[in-house]
Amino acid sequence: MARIAVVAGDGIGPEVVAQARKVLDAVLPGVQATEYDLGAARWHRTGEVLPDSVLAELAGHDAILLGAVGDPTVPPGVLERGLLLKLRFAFDQYVNLRPSRLWPGVAGPLGNVKPGEVDLVVVREGTEGLYAGAGGSLHRDTPAEVATEESLNTRHGVERVIRDAFARAGRRERRKVTLVHKTNVLTHAGSLWARAFDAVAAEHPDVATEYQHVDAAAMFLVTQPQRYDVVVTDNLFGDILTDIAAAVTGGIGLAASGCINPEGAYPSMFEPVHGSAPDIAGQGVADPVAAVLSAALLLEQLGHAEAAARVNAAVATELATRTPGVTLRTEEVGDRLAAHAVA
Amino acid sequence: MARIAVVAGDGIGPEVVAQARKVLDAVLPGVQATEYDLGAARWHRTGEVLPDSVLAELAGHDAILLGAVGDPTVPPGVLERGLLLKLRFAFDQYVNLRPSRLWPGVAGPLGNVKPGEVDLVVVREGTEGLYAGAGGSLHRDTPAEVATEESLNTRHGVERVIRDAFARAGRRERRKVTLVHKTNVLTHAGSLWARAFDAVAAEHPDVATEYQHVDAAAMFLVTQPQRYDVVVTDNLFGDILTDIAAAVTGGIGLAASGCINPEGAYPSMFEPVHGSAPDIAGQGVADPVAAVLSAALLLEQLGHAEAAARVNAAVATELATRTPGVTLRTEEVGDRLAAHAVA
Ligand SMILES: CC(C)[C@H](C(=O)O)[C@@H](O)C(=O)O
Ligand SMILES: CC(C)[C@H](C(=O)O)[C@@H](O)C(=O)O
Repeated sequence: MARIAVVAGDGIGPEVVAQARKVLDAVLPGVQATEYDLGAARWHRTGEVLPDSVLAELAGHDAILLGAVGDPTVPPGVLERGLLLKLRFAFDQYVNLRPSRLWPGVAGPLGNVKPGEVDLVVVREGTEGLYAGAGGSLHRDTPAEVATEESLNTRHGVERVIRDAFARAGRRERRKVTLVHKTNVLTHAGSLWARAFDAVAAEHPDVATEYQHVDAAAMFLVTQPQRYDVVVTDNLFGDILTDIAAAVTGGIGLAASGCINPEGAYPSMFEPVHGSAPDIAGQGVADPVAAVLSAALLLEQLGHAEAAARVNAAVATELATRTPGVTLRTEEVGDRLAAHAVA
Repeated sequence: MARIAVVAGDGIGPEVVAQARKVLDAVLPGVQATEYDLGAARWHRTGEVLPDSVLAELAGHDAILLGAVGDPTVPPGVLERGLLLKLRFAFDQYVNLRPSRLWPGVAGPLGNVKPGEVDLVVVREGTEGLYAGAGGSLHRDTPAEVATEESLNTRHGVERVIRDAFARAGRRERRKVTLVHKTNVLTHAGSLWARAFDAVAAEHPDVATEYQHVDAAAMFLVTQPQRYDVVVTDNLFGDILTDIAAAVTGGIGLAASGCINPEGAYPSMFEPVHGSAPDIAGQGVADPVAAVLSAALLLEQLGHAEAAARVNAAVATELATRTPGVTLRTEEVGDRLAAHAVA
């Protein structure tokens, strides 16, 4: 039976994770879930972000379900670098998978895009680039201060995530991969990405390919999101592009993600793209759909494709029957989703 | 009389620049324009990108009007780094100014945003960050290859562009500056930007401020572009965000920019945000509005505010009377704009 570590985290994290667990329990009775108290509250209480002992315990699970991490009372970076990114890096979760669909019933912001037309997945690199933490500063707090951030890219890291993107594209209907980078300015990293992409593409003659600069891709995600199937890109570009993709498909309230270690050497982690949203925390009005869709990705990763499909179908039913303008209640949405999923 | 250097460049560059000059001549008779042959054609012919002698000549002008640079037949980076970025850096054009308005008559892609509601300007840093060219690679073309790109940020460079943003905001109606960065991951550069921003903000109690992570800003530009007034951000984030801003306000066919050296120690450069668009080059169908609006920014920078206002008004007239779906002819649009501007 699947052993899941649950990190509900901060803000709306606990509220939405509770619904994801409700749905998981409904479609896969007997899931063993262990809760881990990590996030802003623990940091305030103990000064701890992610003790080694907890990291070791997490490693013993099949997957991690995470709500949200971050709070305005904690200095920027402490929880992000110390907890969220620490887990992504320590567990070598190099495929940061972020699907975006415009679900029927969801009114996206784009006038000329109809539900069903957008169905893309961004394969964001998860363990390299500007997220490596290779930066520093000199002469801090003086007029001579200089601060650096370094993007580190290895052939190893770039090629493996590109391989994953092509493998995914091969299983999809349109079989197309778009590489997004900024080869005309970031010539060193861009060249590495482009050469690795071309090499992997040559092994997949059945998959169509294209290249776009990140600025152009950001624009086309707004003007023609329909054109994308699988997008592969680096860590920071993926961070930005997936929020645009979420925005054009109804908002981050619906955007799921998986931080995946495809080899299964470490647990993969599943989390809504949205943050802790402190402004609405505790009110019971956060949309749990993103967390529930993240749980569906978790099920898929653990080999429960049929259960995952039932969760996705439940979400489709929920979204198709929502009345625009009616404030939703987190718990009620969770109840409905759990009921739909086993109906 | 103003002395302008004209770099028409590649693809649709010459077509749109011709219209911008037509309009300039109409509103400011006697402008002295000197054409410089730079871009893909020259590179193919002579191997030269930007000879030092040409750089020195350009330095003697009051401003540069640039069309577009780049061609698929030239390796990525050669013209971008060697010409466009070379000029921005050599002439210390640290304010990359990119206004976005949703003009009446323009059907943007967002269903819930009405013309007139969006009027923002991105003040993009133009001489630092990941554009510094500080990168390299090791073990190229082997499985051990590593490639780096380094973002360099100085207090000097960051503070001066933030000062410019606050000064601009102080002259605008809403008086608001949004800092966009990624302080939770890029903690060193992010901290420098945030501290410099707070210091400058303290000198401007009349200007409202907010901070957003770049991923959130990318999303809000799609869902609520109305909320922005002045946005200040680093070079790469600005590159991406301004293409989103262009997309939500009718596309890069309308997006103007100025690479400005505010002190006037060097010439400022004005260019449409769009590229050379080789797919439509030579057909006479490129929209010259972005180039013409860039010429208006040039006029403003050179102190011809009244002439600039006439060009903007001409563009407003043109856009308000366009029939959707009718293919425009570059020359005819230029003729109409010139006529409107002196009417
Ligand atoms: C919270 C932050 C560190 C994180 C990221 O930048 O990856 C978030 O924006 C995300 O996309 O998961
Ligand atoms: C062509 C390229 C170097 C340039 C940039 O990245 O600045 C362009 O995208 C722009 O925005 O002016």
